[in-house]
Amino acid sequence: MRLTVYLAGEIHSSWRDEIKKKSLALDLPIDFVGPMEDHDRSDNIGEEILGEQPGAVFKDAAASSFNNLRTSVLMEKSDLVIALFGEQYKQWNTAMDASAALASHKPLIVIRPEKLHHPLKELSQKANATVETCDQAIKALSYIFD
Amino acid sequence: MRLTVYLAGEIHSSWRDEIKKKSLALDLPIDFVGPMEDHDRSDNIGEEILGEQPGAVFKDAAASSFNNLRTSVLMEKSDLVIALFGEQYKQWNTAMDASAALASHKPLIVIRPEKLHHPLKELSQKANATVETCDQAIKALSYIFD
Amino acid sequence: MRLTVYLAGEIHSSWRDEIKKKSLALDLPIDFVGPMEDHDRSDNIGEEILGEQPGAVFKDAAASSFNNLRTSVLMEKSDLVIALFGEQYKQWNTAMDASAALASHKPLIVIRPEKLHHPLKELSQKANATVETCDQAIKALSYIFD
Amino acid sequence: MRLTVYLAGEIHSSWRDEIKKKSLALDLPIDFVGPMEDHDRSDNIGEEILGEQPGAVFKDAAASSFNNLRTSVLMEKSDLVIALFGEQYKQWNTAMDASAALASHKPLIVIRPEKLHHPLKELSQKANATVETCDQAIKALSYIFD
Amino acid sequence: MRLTVYLAGEIHSSWRDEIKKKSLALDLPIDFVGPMEDHDRSDNIGEEILGEQPGAVFKDAAASSFNNLRTSVLMEKSDLVIALFGEQYKQWNTAMDASAALASHKPLIVIRPEKLHHPLKELSQKANATVETCDQAIKALSYIFD
Amino acid sequence: MRLTVYLAGEIHSSWRDEIKKKSLALDLPIDFVGPMEDHDRSDNIGEEILGEQPGAVFKDAAASSFNNLRTSVLMEKSDLVIALFGEQYKQWNTAMDASAALASHKPLIVIRPEKLHHPLKELSQKANATVETCDQAIKALSYIFD
Amino acid sequence: MRLTVYLAGEIHSSWRDEIKKKSLALDLPIDFVGPMEDHDRSDNIGEEILGEQPGAVFKDAAASSFNNLRTSVLMEKSDLVIALFGEQYKQWNTAMDASAALASHKPLIVIRPEKLHHPLKELSQKANATVETCDQAIKALSYIFD
Amino acid sequence: MRLTVYLAGEIHSSWRDEIKKKSLALDLPIDFVGPMEDHDRSDNIGEEILGEQPGAVFKDAAASSFNNLRTSVLMEKSDLVIALFGEQYKQWNTAMDASAALASHKPLIVIRPEKLHHPLKELSQKANATVETCDQAIKALSYIFD
Repeated sequence: MRLTVYLAGEIHSSWRDEIKKKSLALDLPIDFVGPMEDHDRSDNIGEEILGEQPGAVFKDAAASSFNNLRTSVLMEKSDLVIALFGEQYKQWNTAMDASAALASHKPLIVIRPEKLHHPLKELSQKANATVETCDQAIKALSYIFD
Repeated sequence: MRLTVYLAGEIHSSWRDEIKKKSLALDLPIDFVGPMEDHDRSDNIGEEILGEQPGAVFKDAAASSFNNLRTSVLMEKSDLVIALFGEQYKQWNTAMDASAALASHKPLIVIRPEKLHHPLKELSQKANATVETCDQAIKALSYIFD
Repeated sequence: MRLTVYLAGEIHSSWRDEIKKKSLALDLPIDFVGPMEDHDRSDNIGEEILGEQPGAVFKDAAASSFNNLRTSVLMEKSDLVIALFGEQYKQWNTAMDASAALASHKPLIVIRPEKLHHPLKELSQKANATVETCDQAIKALSYIFD
Repeated sequence: MRLTVYLAGEIHSSWRDEIKKKSLALDLPIDFVGPMEDHDRSDNIGEEILGEQPGAVFKDAAASSFNNLRTSVLMEKSDLVIALFGEQYKQWNTAMDASAALASHKPLIVIRPEKLHHPLKELSQKANATVETCDQAIKALSYIFD
Repeated sequence: MRLTVYLAGEIHSSWRDEIKKKSLALDLPIDFVGPMEDHDRSDNIGEEILGEQPGAVFKDAAASSFNNLRTSVLMEKSDLVIALFGEQYKQWNTAMDASAALASHKPLIVIRPEKLHHPLKELSQKANATVETCDQAIKALSYIFD
Repeated sequence: MRLTVYLAGEIHSSWRDEIKKKSLALDLPIDFVGPMEDHDRSDNIGEEILGEQPGAVFKDAAASSFNNLRTSVLMEKSDLVIALFGEQYKQWNTAMDASAALASHKPLIVIRPEKLHHPLKELSQKANATVETCDQAIKALSYIFD
Repeated sequence: MRLTVYLAGEIHSSWRDEIKKKSLALDLPIDFVGPMEDHDRSDNIGEEILGEQPGAVFKDAAASSFNNLRTSVLMEKSDLVIALFGEQYKQWNTAMDASAALASHKPLIVIRPEKLHHPLKELSQKANATVETCDQAIKALSYIFD
Repeated sequence: MRLTVYLAGEIHSSWRDEIKKKSLALDLPIDFVGPMEDHDRSDNIGEEILGEQPGAVFKDAAASSFNNLRTSVLMEKSDLVIALFGEQYKQWNTAMDASAALASHKPLIVIRPEKLHHPLKELSQKANATVETCDQAIKALSYIFD
């Protein structure tokens, strides 16, 4: 049995690499998918495909249509979603992805530093589990196969 | 035909009053529901019901279980959700509620100041409509009955 | 038992009035809902609410978000959908509404002139019933209560 | 991860070949499926299987039952739907397939010439993305794997 | 709390009247709905609405589209389905309605004479309850309110 | 807005009366439903309706078909489920009802004495909220309307 | 792409062999599944597993629980259902399986001799296609891959 | 065709080994999954991953979040669930898993000693089949492939 895990969350740090390496080291039968991690490309994909748009709001609307298309396809293929929240950025699309996962019965692990417990309390309470580090998330994944 | 509309979003300003008053002035057949608007009570409801918890994280976990219970019941009764994002606070529960609404086929109107267009672009693209003011949201509601 | 019926289809002729009058004459316990029938307003609702848009495509995108919002809310409240196809116009939104009705288990009656049988054959085959006139549709509605 | 993509739309031009060739050139892990592309056979399949029918309407009803059977099976197997609208023909079955895809949570890309933006505005607004050329659709597919 | 109960099954005897009278005598808060009980009209409704059809099979196809439309609307409004099987007739539409009820989570009571236990064994096993008389079905309904 | 609340759990003590009285005292707009509370009748309902069965297992099978029928109808009508676990009895049907509620998106409040926390830990973690007394459950219900 | 097809219907003739052979001859990528075809074993499976039951009705109840278990598992694995009706027997479980297939969005082909058109008219109208012979059903399957 | 079967129930005896060995002996194409069978680890997994918790209730809450995560992922992958009830322990999570399986349309076999028929009567009545021994469950699994 192989699992596919969608890694939702910010694309400014290398947390996905950490998770993938540790999963590999443990030989977990998991394939990881996630959003476009090249931040500029994620912002520009609308104009890259459709050409110049009439202003920043429209550029964003075009980009998000392709980002959401990617997320929809890959999340549908996933058995479990991990959503990481960091201390920077609004990360509303992370909250959106996490909630969409729950609503479509995909088990959800939230990773967040303890200091974010208050603004994330409602989402944590809905998630299957909330942890603070990638190491803990890997332990949770590993436990599924033990 | 009466509609029930869930008003998701921050509970620090009086935007819900504005919407309710304008809806009343237009005689729209709409009942509004939403989260507990007394911020302290929302934070303390877990300990109010269950007694003192062993620390802030546990206090939040207890509170969020009753806040999510309330939201689940009231959102299920709603025909449409309006989610307002302001310039302060993390508002991850607003994003969570908005995404849960979409996932359960509740039409969604997002209200946000234009300057937040970038961090909200993926959620806006999924919403049925995105507007900038409560007035515009009221016009959208009113259009349903015209 | 009262039923709510959504009347999908073109907004250039008075077919909805004909159906409503005949239903009233037969005293059928039916409430009818449907799209905005003022064609100009339907085209302009995006700019009416959001202000001027940067070109015709964007004006249409804005308008359709509010038209789809209206349709989603009203169709969800409906027990049955009637979709009328005429000989003019593309009417792709009518086909979209009819198919969305079927996909969400709303019974569907298609009204179309016989001469349109070929391009509508796949939709007719999926519909619960296909008729040629409003009179026949009224008979089908009436039969539910007989 | 391989994806299956259903190509809905007219069967008079070679747009499916263009998409398949470009996908192959990019080595995208995609299997394409779609309707019967032999137009005469699609029209005659009812009589081919069931024998002569009593008139054109009944011949169409018989044909569409097998066409819809094929579409149901293949679309259910698909992860994503592309619907192309051209300038000719009614294409109501394309709109029907596109809407059915959305209603069953299959991500949808609409391809249409810009000049069709007005009659397709409601469907475009519901689609995950709308593009104008097969090249752009391929870029959108490719972005899912980047 | 009022319930709506769909009475599926043959339309040649007066079993529906028996159930309605006994329910009334017990003052049960139940509204009963069901198929067209005028057998000739049920067979002829297709031609009554659409005009003469080219043969018996097509007459039946037309009639069944309106009979199924009626059933779909009324069963969707129902909280519970009772399906009665008698010793005559094929009654495949009764089995179809009973199975559709189960598949859409409508509780199902089957009424059948004991001697039919063998051919109905798979359906009885899926039903919530199987009884032999209308009296027993009324007791089951009554038990819901006790 | 009125809510319907299903009270699942043992039928040997008067906890339902306590909840109903306290809800009445607070004037909460709630209708309560639940299982047959006459324990003997609940055990005998199968033979009461169907006549004597060939042994205890068959008597139980007959009874449970009518008990489950009742539960299905009433739970489907409910907006929220409260499941109380006491220190006696197996209460597997309570756990079954609680889990069925969660699986069909009915919010769930578990009431259990603290000493049962260990055997109920998986169910508590899935429930929207777990409390220890009827008083606390009433506060949770009341909070929905505050 | 391989398909799995469930063959519902009577188990007294060799129609399944005919379908399997013709599918093999055409090299169709289809795996066929279906009910236990050994009629005696299908009737006796309850007592074979659970031991002697107290009478014919209970023997049937036991058998049908294992027959329905088998059907549930295999139908869930299927992409399409073929239901054959012959001129003998009640075949209510065939109608039940056909209706369950439709209700869970499995495309359905009905095979029946023309003379059965009247009692099957409502089921035929709901099926994706109705044919008269196994040959025609094979042509319909084959068309999916052409 | 391979099946995946989830083995829910107590983790104090070796009943899973018995089932796996007998399945292997019969060469059944079945993969078995289930909960963590190391009882201590199942109780301690919360603290193993998250560190010490403030008391037994919180330790249990933490453990159950990871146990439920594991169950959700593995049950979603399963085609059938077997739930075994023994004479010891509360086994409320077994009842919860069994009911969740039913609610998500996973066929369910209950194994229980006859003496437990009374407290399990409602769950047995909902299950696809109830047997008394692992041997009987294996016969039921085997019957699916015969």
